Amino acid sequence: MSSSDLHLPVPGHPIAAIATPVGVGALAIVRISGAGVLDIADRVFRKAHGSDKLAAAAGYTAHFGRLHDGEEMVDEVIALVFRSPRSFTAEEMVEFTCHGGPVVVGRVLRLMLDHGCRLAEPGEFTRRAFLNGRIDLLQAEAIGEMIHARTESAYRTAVSQMKGDLSKRLGELREQLIRSCALIELELDFGEEEVEFQSRAELTAQVETLRGEVNRLIDSYQHGRLVSEGVSTVIAGKPNAGKSTLLNMLLGQERAIVSHMPGTTRDYIEECFIHDKTMFRLTDTAGLREAGEEIEHEGIRRSRMKMAEADLILYMLDLGAERLDDEIREIRELKAAHPDAKFLAIANKLDRADNADALIRAIAEGTGTEVIGISALKGDGIDTLKQHMGDLVKNLDKLHEASVLVTSLRHYEALRNASDALQNALELIAHESETELIAFELRSALDYVGEITGKVVNEEVLNTIFDRFCIGK
Amino acid sequence: MSSSDLHLPVPGHPIAAIATPVGVGALAIVRISGAGVLDIADRVFRKAHGSDKLAAAAGYTAHFGRLHDGEEMVDEVIALVFRSPRSFTAEEMVEFTCHGGPVVVGRVLRLMLDHGCRLAEPGEFTRRAFLNGRIDLLQAEAIGEMIHARTESAYRTAVSQMKGDLSKRLGELREQLIRSCALIELELDFGEEEVEFQSRAELTAQVETLRGEVNRLIDSYQHGRLVSEGVSTVIAGKPNAGKSTLLNMLLGQERAIVSHMPGTTRDYIEECFIHDKTMFRLTDTAGLREAGEEIEHEGIRRSRMKMAEADLILYMLDLGAERLDDEIREIRELKAAHPDAKFLAIANKLDRADNADALIRAIAEGTGTEVIGISALKGDGIDTLKQHMGDLVKNLDKLHEASVLVTSLRHYEALRNASDALQNALELIAHESETELIAFELRSALDYVGEITGKVVNEEVLNTIFDRFCIGK
Repeated sequence: MSSSDLHLPVPGHPIAAIATPVGVGALAIVRISGAGVLDIADRVFRKAHGSDKLAAAAGYTAHFGRLHDGEEMVDEVIALVFRSPRSFTAEEMVEFTCHGGPVVVGRVLRLMLDHGCRLAEPGEFTRRAFLNGRIDLLQAEAIGEMIHARTESAYRTAVSQMKGDLSKRLGELREQLIRSCALIELELDFGEEEVEFQSRAELTAQVETLRGEVNRLIDSYQHGRLVSEGVSTVIAGKPNAGKSTLLNMLLGQERAIVSHMPGTTRDYIEECFIHDKTMFRLTDTAGLREAGEEIEHEGIRRSRMKMAEADLILYMLDLGAERLDDEIREIRELKAAHPDAKFLAIANKLDRADNADALIRAIAEGTGTEVIGISALKGDGIDTLKQHMGDLVKNLDKLHEASVLVTSLRHYEALRNASDALQNALELIAHESETELIAFELRSALDYVGEITGKVVNEEVLNTIFDRFCIGK
Repeated sequence: MSSSDLHLPVPGHPIAAIATPVGVGALAIVRISGAGVLDIADRVFRKAHGSDKLAAAAGYTAHFGRLHDGEEMVDEVIALVFRSPRSFTAEEMVEFTCHGGPVVVGRVLRLMLDHGCRLAEPGEFTRRAFLNGRIDLLQAEAIGEMIHARTESAYRTAVSQMKGDLSKRLGELREQLIRSCALIELELDFGEEEVEFQSRAELTAQVETLRGEVNRLIDSYQHGRLVSEGVSTVIAGKPNAGKSTLLNMLLGQERAIVSHMPGTTRDYIEECFIHDKTMFRLTDTAGLREAGEEIEHEGIRRSRMKMAEADLILYMLDLGAERLDDEIREIRELKAAHPDAKFLAIANKLDRADNADALIRAIAEGTGTEVIGISALKGDGIDTLKQHMGDLVKNLDKLHEASVLVTSLRHYEALRNASDALQNALELIAHESETELIAFELRSALDYVGEITGKVVNEEVLNTIFDRFCIGK
């Protein structure tokens, strides 16, 4: 579980960052880590009682005092001292808890930068923790997931990953693979002698078991992704079917929760709501569509793009409209075009159609899709709709409680590669291919699994992972 | 400086709150304070190494471990232990540094509430710090000012107040007042004997000196308020003069800094920009005015209201307009109606008028107001305008560096009352009034000054102060 076999904890250049969210609050934390940070701290920190130096303080002790920039007082703070290797990064660290206003916190950070720290890059603290063997890559990623978790489910999956549940499972897989590799590589050492330390039948059975376990993890990604990223939901339908109204009703009081995530650039607007622990990400293609003509064209292109990656498509139709045949055809075409998405047809203006039940039945039969009748205007049927939306993905929670979930595309892809390599190995064994080729595939599978926890590291992968972190983590 | 003579540190009911800003960040702090919080912490915290209890830990020590809700792990945290009376509130306290995501932090808080804490009221930690004599009222308020400071000037004034600069000045004032009071009250003790322990001339000189000092502090409020709250700026002018464009140009890239402060209700939209350490609060009456007719009426009412309390009015006029006479009359009327506000006339569409210089001179002469020519469309003249706006309030910084500033309306009013009482005392002395009446006025002045630092406490004042704090402070 530790990668300390790969890297020795060499203290890096002192770095500083604001670790708490930016905004108005009682307290904030500015953390520094690296070579000589205790001396840096001593240059700006004056203890309230006594003249003890932080450089002389024991780890895990806190000290009350004032930060000074020359003679100017910057803030009253608590300085928390961590000594290498018993710190998050395994380096010397100080965490200053200062007052929480944006100006104060900026001032404290500047003080650190003026005295020899440089601004930490995104995820640099966690990166150092990983490189110094304090946590594995999965745990590093779990920290990021946890911070960004917007639902209880996403948070609980992150906790499980941080605790090392997935790391442990993968560690077991790796050990079994190493054993298989070791035996078959031993055969190679004996070269021409054609010794078999394990019957090919035994090896086949072992590799099949391993592949089964890898595939179970791969399968969990379908749900893991929904837990971690939310259910990508698109509202489709003709103009004036009431899509915008529906969007607003689904968002309801929750509208304020999200919209843009800072730092990401998006051409469309996404809003989220959480129903029964599941987050639904609603793409506001509706709004785009109802703008002027030029924008509409662009809007339709975007709607199509979003629909192509949707987990759930809500097709909104107007029960009072004249051409229900058209709608039925449209739904059938959409379903054919998006076989992976779940579908719900929503029959709006329930209150204005005389024969609503018959119409709904006709749509359901004509499309093979569940149809929910609502009145977006009156608010009728919205709870039922949310309930049905939840039901479509409700196995989420059960699955989540039962087992370890793969939530990251990176892990999913590595597992897919591992599974493919194991499949190749099985075929080579079946065709009585050369031992060397079999060993190569098993070794590949081992490397792919190792990539996930960071046993096998790759600078590019590390950059991708840590660049997504916020500064200060 | 301490009010420990008023209150003994009796531990209150255990309270809990999130102390860091809400949002996504690496770390967050959940703090608990009050009777038995170490035991509460021990119920949910499991130390990573060893089984030591936090209740047995020394103050100012940190402990790494996990928070558990039963068997479910909630987060990995650092628990920082403070023992009474060496804590912010003077009670037993624990600060848990957990991961910074909104869901995690909410979960940690809930854990504390589930185990015997109640949610802290806004400012309750600071209120306890005050009631337990850890800080005086001025310092408590300074903490709030510091957290909400949006400019370097506001922040530096808050630091000065937190350090106790104003407390010290008021303490000296109080001591001198107490001496004067004591001597004159001694005379009262001697009753009929008509002893004078101090000549009336001496007393007059003393009280005059004191009143002079009080008045200097009162005078500093005019600037202190601008430092603390920013310069309230209204853009006035006819529709289509380019007010909205001007607003956007002044805000420029800074637009994101503010808008609504959470927790305050406002009927109008304010946006701020900072120029050379001074914050200008721009009221968007422009936007209101250009909406539909009904809103326009309401908008004009609000514009008037905002203008009545403006520090600075920018009157925007169109150089290309036909009736410059109208504009000149309008400016003169506005100036007459708002004698306390600073004025700047802004002549827009500089690029479209042939005789711009002559027109500008005519307006300046006709109104007695400085006129800045700009082209809101092209962006010309905006830097000059900001420069002039800054100049109008530029003595701020000089004043601020030179002396102690009064920044709060509460302090200002108490000082005004003290000054009035001292004036009354002077008049009574001049009229050779009874000693008792003079003593009463001096005693009143003493109480008013004492109200500021909290020497004289009043539940209502405390409520007003601490209700404005955020929860967790």
